[in-house]
Amino acid sequence: MERIGFVGLGRMGRPMAANIRRRQHPMTVFDIADAPVQALEALGAERAGSPAAVARASDIAVTMLPGPREVAETILGADGLLANLRPGGLVMDMSTVDPETTDRVAAACAGRGIGFVDAPVGRLAQHADRGESLFMVGASEADFARVKPLLEAMGSTIHHCGGPGAGTRTKLVNNYLAVILCQLNAEALSLGAAFGLDLEKTLEVLHGTTATNGQLKVNWPNKVLAGDTEPGFAIDLAHKDLSLILQAASAARVPLPVAAAAREAFNAARARGMGRQDFSAMLDAQCAAAGVAPPRLKG
Amino acid sequence: MERIGFVGLGRMGRPMAANIRRRQHPMTVFDIADAPVQALEALGAERAGSPAAVARASDIAVTMLPGPREVAETILGADGLLANLRPGGLVMDMSTVDPETTDRVAAACAGRGIGFVDAPVGRLAQHADRGESLFMVGASEADFARVKPLLEAMGSTIHHCGGPGAGTRTKLVNNYLAVILCQLNAEALSLGAAFGLDLEKTLEVLHGTTATNGQLKVNWPNKVLAGDTEPGFAIDLAHKDLSLILQAASAARVPLPVAAAAREAFNAARARGMGRQDFSAMLDAQCAAAGVAPPRLKG
Amino acid sequence: MERIGFVGLGRMGRPMAANIRRRQHPMTVFDIADAPVQALEALGAERAGSPAAVARASDIAVTMLPGPREVAETILGADGLLANLRPGGLVMDMSTVDPETTDRVAAACAGRGIGFVDAPVGRLAQHADRGESLFMVGASEADFARVKPLLEAMGSTIHHCGGPGAGTRTKLVNNYLAVILCQLNAEALSLGAAFGLDLEKTLEVLHGTTATNGQLKVNWPNKVLAGDTEPGFAIDLAHKDLSLILQAASAARVPLPVAAAAREAFNAARARGMGRQDFSAMLDAQCAAAGVAPPRLKG
Amino acid sequence: MERIGFVGLGRMGRPMAANIRRRQHPMTVFDIADAPVQALEALGAERAGSPAAVARASDIAVTMLPGPREVAETILGADGLLANLRPGGLVMDMSTVDPETTDRVAAACAGRGIGFVDAPVGRLAQHADRGESLFMVGASEADFARVKPLLEAMGSTIHHCGGPGAGTRTKLVNNYLAVILCQLNAEALSLGAAFGLDLEKTLEVLHGTTATNGQLKVNWPNKVLAGDTEPGFAIDLAHKDLSLILQAASAARVPLPVAAAAREAFNAARARGMGRQDFSAMLDAQCAAAGVAPPRLKG
Repeated sequence: MERIGFVGLGRMGRPMAANIRRRQHPMTVFDIADAPVQALEALGAERAGSPAAVARASDIAVTMLPGPREVAETILGADGLLANLRPGGLVMDMSTVDPETTDRVAAACAGRGIGFVDAPVGRLAQHADRGESLFMVGASEADFARVKPLLEAMGSTIHHCGGPGAGTRTKLVNNYLAVILCQLNAEALSLGAAFGLDLEKTLEVLHGTTATNGQLKVNWPNKVLAGDTEPGFAIDLAHKDLSLILQAASAARVPLPVAAAAREAFNAARARGMGRQDFSAMLDAQCAAAGVAPPRLKG
Repeated sequence: MERIGFVGLGRMGRPMAANIRRRQHPMTVFDIADAPVQALEALGAERAGSPAAVARASDIAVTMLPGPREVAETILGADGLLANLRPGGLVMDMSTVDPETTDRVAAACAGRGIGFVDAPVGRLAQHADRGESLFMVGASEADFARVKPLLEAMGSTIHHCGGPGAGTRTKLVNNYLAVILCQLNAEALSLGAAFGLDLEKTLEVLHGTTATNGQLKVNWPNKVLAGDTEPGFAIDLAHKDLSLILQAASAARVPLPVAAAAREAFNAARARGMGRQDFSAMLDAQCAAAGVAPPRLKG
Repeated sequence: MERIGFVGLGRMGRPMAANIRRRQHPMTVFDIADAPVQALEALGAERAGSPAAVARASDIAVTMLPGPREVAETILGADGLLANLRPGGLVMDMSTVDPETTDRVAAACAGRGIGFVDAPVGRLAQHADRGESLFMVGASEADFARVKPLLEAMGSTIHHCGGPGAGTRTKLVNNYLAVILCQLNAEALSLGAAFGLDLEKTLEVLHGTTATNGQLKVNWPNKVLAGDTEPGFAIDLAHKDLSLILQAASAARVPLPVAAAAREAFNAARARGMGRQDFSAMLDAQCAAAGVAPPRLKG
Repeated sequence: MERIGFVGLGRMGRPMAANIRRRQHPMTVFDIADAPVQALEALGAERAGSPAAVARASDIAVTMLPGPREVAETILGADGLLANLRPGGLVMDMSTVDPETTDRVAAACAGRGIGFVDAPVGRLAQHADRGESLFMVGASEADFARVKPLLEAMGSTIHHCGGPGAGTRTKLVNNYLAVILCQLNAEALSLGAAFGLDLEKTLEVLHGTTATNGQLKVNWPNKVLAGDTEPGFAIDLAHKDLSLILQAASAARVPLPVAAAAREAFNAARARGMGRQDFSAMLDAQCAAAGVAPPRLKG
């Protein structure tokens, strides 16, 4: 059985690592916080003092980190994973980063005979808890076969999107739609509110036409439309993703006028102090900008 | 049985009128073109020489016209419907117009003891042919009961959205989403194309998350993604609807930054000479702007 | 000396008419308000009961009206100017309207042997008071020669921009820049404020580079930067002009992405209740959106 | 006389260093390219093999580098300037970078008793050749006094904008306006072209109102309007600056809707293959998008 290293035990990483460990893989973990490391120790994992130590004890090293800078440091740094894995090892980065970072890490791994998989995560933290995450995976066939048991331990839907880098890129395309749908729905429902339309009747119409969408149908009824703006996915994070998307699109010379307009709307919501609310609360930000009461489902 | 008048026998109006006539309502029709009038005569309708003549022969007068100007002239003009209907008559406007026009017509009808219903049409021309249209209806309960048999003759889904004006307003909110989803999907898939992602795999991912939407799932696979850009609903019409929406939002002081960015994208597609293509062809316009080949489904 | 008719004695029209009358032209005037008509009578003008009566008493009929609808009714209506002017007469419209309206009126005049001049007005109401307005004129050479003495009575700068319609179009291009510069300066200075920069030093830099612009250099120091947001030109009017510009650009298939974004910013300022403030107060709207204190000049 | 180090002898850095050297300052230089180093040697400067070597030979070390990454590496890197300057030394960064980078470098310098000045450069390369650059300087009074002779050797206009960081921030605000004015003028003149207006007459009008601006009046008549699109400042660089500005504004939670729309227009111009043309050529990109011939001055 492969020995697994796991770096990054935050709100997502911790249950993901736990779900791997429960399948009895030998596991070594590292995080700058103590509590999640203790939690993994309680499940039988070993504590390491650095990413380097994780690498020396592992065949496959998994990273789940906040962003591009942490990923680059942890994997490529002088005291990082790549410099300390044995040949034949493999790095699987599950963080959400820009394609440039993924490609840089992938090339560095290839240059040292280390496998590389990018497998960013879809769905929310609660899904990770229950081992029901969705993964968008970029990997060679051989590397994919190797990490597949781990992914199956952590999630219920696995998309092998293409070679290295395809996971990161698919995630950006997916999040582009999911995030901007929030601004789209916000504009539509604020207009409905200003028009004095009944929310329930409007939704009934929308869900019977091609206007329907996953955010409005699945996420919103349990979140902002029910008055719950606790973050499943926060406006600050959505704004960060939009920034990554626009940066990647700029590098690829793909103009994205709607994404650009939406990012400024998210930024305006942050200026209103709403950055830590759920991204469906873009409805409330938009209604505040329009001076109308945000609509809510009855009862 | 109520005597029905029908003004406006275009691509939508003609099958709608025919479907009413097939239920054996006495019917008088008017259009500036001769061919559709002959077609209705063949079904037993009477030809009238003017909207006024239609009004004098009808209890309920239905209008299905290109836009606000034609609606105002036909209903409110000196030689129009309102001036020639008997008290107790009813006007049902099924055109897509701005709320200001609907409200003006509704108020004029109310002022003369004439009922008023706004019932704009969802779905495409083929649905109208088969009597499977969707209607968003603004009407008092009494007026709604009176037109319901007609709506049932023409369509399969009827939403009574509220009092007079609610139909027109709901249609704008609905079309806001359906139309802008095309630009949203265009941006997302052009980015995927620039990233070199496989279209089928990307769609498989998107439809398993909240990124999914009615345009991408229902309309696009049969239209632009299959290489068919014949208009079910043309870019020129989508652009016209966006203009109506932004005008109504301006009047209501609701800022719509994403709608505004999208309208200019539709306008840019028109400048490329694509105005008569299906609105899903916004994908091709966006890919042309980004300099990437537009993705198509295989086989 | 030509007999002059003047319809529309609002904040701009009244001093303009007065300045013509002071040159001793016989003059007949009409307005729905009584006070400005009395004021012109005091200067020796005749009062008429309708636009038609103005036309019958005049060789040249001038209009200065709120917008396209009023212009079309007053000039083209059954009881309007065109139907009542003698052959050889001339209509000069000085209102700000869309090119489509100007072209429609020009064609109707040409069809009846009546001259037509479009001569919208630049600068502010105070300039009109002092006979220092700027005019952008669309006219044939012969018609231009005929109205030139009137324009010289009302203003100090006269641009003959081309044939009929060129005045209206030049005004839209000019107002496009003047209005959007307000949003541009607002974004720049709000960023400076968030950065903690000193306003005076920033302006000193900007005016020494190509970043300088007429709004920031000429208008703003006396208005919003001095804390004066009384309207020289109100945000509501700027928003109306942007709407005309975008409508004309849509008709011409010219995409204007920055104009579209700016219009929504103006609309958001209106939603904040700032529609009657000077258009330089877009600075305050933008600073409110960004959550920073709006910068002001010292002393 | 202070010993000067200079790192970064590109199109701007080379004449700037030369102009300092001509005032007889002892000078040590470094660049990865050989030719510019030789040119400076010919003026009496010493060649160094690394930034560290420059630092060891200098009292004041000047950097003029492509972007944030190079600045951070050159100044903060293990083999960089800061680690090798003697106490009492001073770093002056003249590159265009984001405020976060400037602040990080400034704090690192302060932490080691090294002075820090940010002094990004305005105007074009030709101005640098002639010692006529403009500088926006962030520095303490003492540090400003120390670098003033150097700035006077390189430029003719020196703005001391505030403490460390104020130079970088003022430059972003300034470039925001200068760059976006290009898109603004492009939209206005493309509309004029679609309207069939005469360019010379339109410009005459615009320069007599508050619509006038530095780009349209000073830069454009010698560049795109004269048919010259050779880069004084390239679209790629303008796009890079807009990206820096939007990133800094995002960090400061200042929404910039017009800047966001403009950046995508610059990105679309890059997708058209125009990235290396002068930023005034946004006129040609916009006219291509609108399908109209780009206007040019006669003769």
